[in-house]
Amino acid sequence: MSDGGLSPGGLGRVALLGTGLIGGSFAAALKRHGLASRIIAFSAGDAQAALQMGLVDEVVDSAQVAVAGCDAVVLAAPVSVNIALLEQIGRALPPGVLLTDVSSVKLGVVEAARRHLGEALPGFVPCHPIAGSERSGPQAADADLFAGRTVILSPLATSEPSQVTRLEQIWQRFGARVLRLSPQEHDRVYALVSHWPHAVGFALAAAVAGNRIDDALVGQGLLDLTRTAASSPELWADILLQNAQPVLQAAELVADELAAIRDAVERGDRAALAALFSRAAAWRNRLG
Amino acid sequence: MSDGGLSPGGLGRVALLGTGLIGGSFAAALKRHGLASRIIAFSAGDAQAALQMGLVDEVVDSAQVAVAGCDAVVLAAPVSVNIALLEQIGRALPPGVLLTDVSSVKLGVVEAARRHLGEALPGFVPCHPIAGSERSGPQAADADLFAGRTVILSPLATSEPSQVTRLEQIWQRFGARVLRLSPQEHDRVYALVSHWPHAVGFALAAAVAGNRIDDALVGQGLLDLTRTAASSPELWADILLQNAQPVLQAAELVADELAAIRDAVERGDRAALAALFSRAAAWRNRLG
Repeated sequence: MSDGGLSPGGLGRVALLGTGLIGGSFAAALKRHGLASRIIAFSAGDAQAALQMGLVDEVVDSAQVAVAGCDAVVLAAPVSVNIALLEQIGRALPPGVLLTDVSSVKLGVVEAARRHLGEALPGFVPCHPIAGSERSGPQAADADLFAGRTVILSPLATSEPSQVTRLEQIWQRFGARVLRLSPQEHDRVYALVSHWPHAVGFALAAAVAGNRIDDALVGQGLLDLTRTAASSPELWADILLQNAQPVLQAAELVADELAAIRDAVERGDRAALAALFSRAAAWRNRLG
Repeated sequence: MSDGGLSPGGLGRVALLGTGLIGGSFAAALKRHGLASRIIAFSAGDAQAALQMGLVDEVVDSAQVAVAGCDAVVLAAPVSVNIALLEQIGRALPPGVLLTDVSSVKLGVVEAARRHLGEALPGFVPCHPIAGSERSGPQAADADLFAGRTVILSPLATSEPSQVTRLEQIWQRFGARVLRLSPQEHDRVYALVSHWPHAVGFALAAAVAGNRIDDALVGQGLLDLTRTAASSPELWADILLQNAQPVLQAAELVADELAAIRDAVERGDRAALAALFSRAAAWRNRLG
């Protein structure tokens, strides 16, 4: 890890607000690629651990102190905390700062940014790296976490194009593939491909946990289906609540498929089951 | 691979009815450990492929021909086919034969055995290796598939204890841990820890497949949650239909958890979500 030398296209002095898996990995990747001159961290919980691991250079006592004099600010706390941070730092941001967030939900963050950022709004480029894990905390941070992964950028009509390009190039330096979605489209898609599926994984695990079944009876299929259920309960409660309406719509889509399977089992309709499962398997086999 | 030399405790001449992932792996493990003098296969689909791969020694045209003169018979076809095979071979089984099956559902197989086996019933020891995979066919066969896995034995009150012990020792030679459950308890437990969870994985995949979402947007969480949805649609339709009542009861247990999550999202009840997810995560973290 480098602790300073700044490559062309780097972010300069970076305030990192949130030092868990994603924030810690972002910091590690910035250092690996020499894309930050200094990383100043603030977080409610684990910033000291991130400092001891060398992920960040300095820990401060408040978000306002962290952002003072910074060239870039990264919001990497749980989504509701990122929303609260926008209000706290909105008027404290230096002119020309690049501001981004890595929240799993976009619309609520964007609305808070519009309310609180004022003149700093053009520097705000929302994003979401599709690189979560059931692991959490700075201990799980990995400079390679984003390599080969997709990162969604959701720039606003007000976002400064040069800031969007700067951020896009940072993610590309980390080996990520950058795609763009509007905040609304992002939240609709991720309710269906991530947020509600995580809820389903928790539900499966909770149903088995509630039935006191010997661990030795559990096979690989259920281990795969519930791997995400080892994720942070608080983080996922926050994500579902922040994206409630799209999540409830996604829940309906999944409920429709479950009802179709249940009805086919009740009717003994082998052809209906095989057709539904074949449609699912064709999709899954395509993904590899 | 050995093609013949028989170790003490071996099964002698084995008829293998069904040569997919489980049947092929059982044959490969028998050969690896020198526990069969000859393996004669019959199956509707892939027995010739199993022969070409050296998993079995001979392929014949019918189940009756396969079992003639055998010391042991292994039913390794889909569960409904195993049930049909019991009727076909019931009166053709040599005296003293050890008969087993590897079906994912036990009660229907046991009922068919009671109807059709006659004097051969004491030689029947139902079992279920917990070693499936989304892969299928003899191409996926692996002599090590059962190492470190659990195998459920569901011996009947009528099962000859010496045959139960023989089969148990075979599985132990393969490196499996053998546990016992009654057929009813097996079917109740596996409806909840395997059969309905597989249905849920198919439902998640089908819901996303029906919404034409760019593959690049899908993250690791959904890949884990839907890995089982790449499994054979026909095989899983068969399993759900053969275990319909326990599966529908398991579906209710999972539906209750999903409803609790949905209601909490609607109410904005963070504490309820975090409590349910924490219960799930504690269970899943314990499994490692």
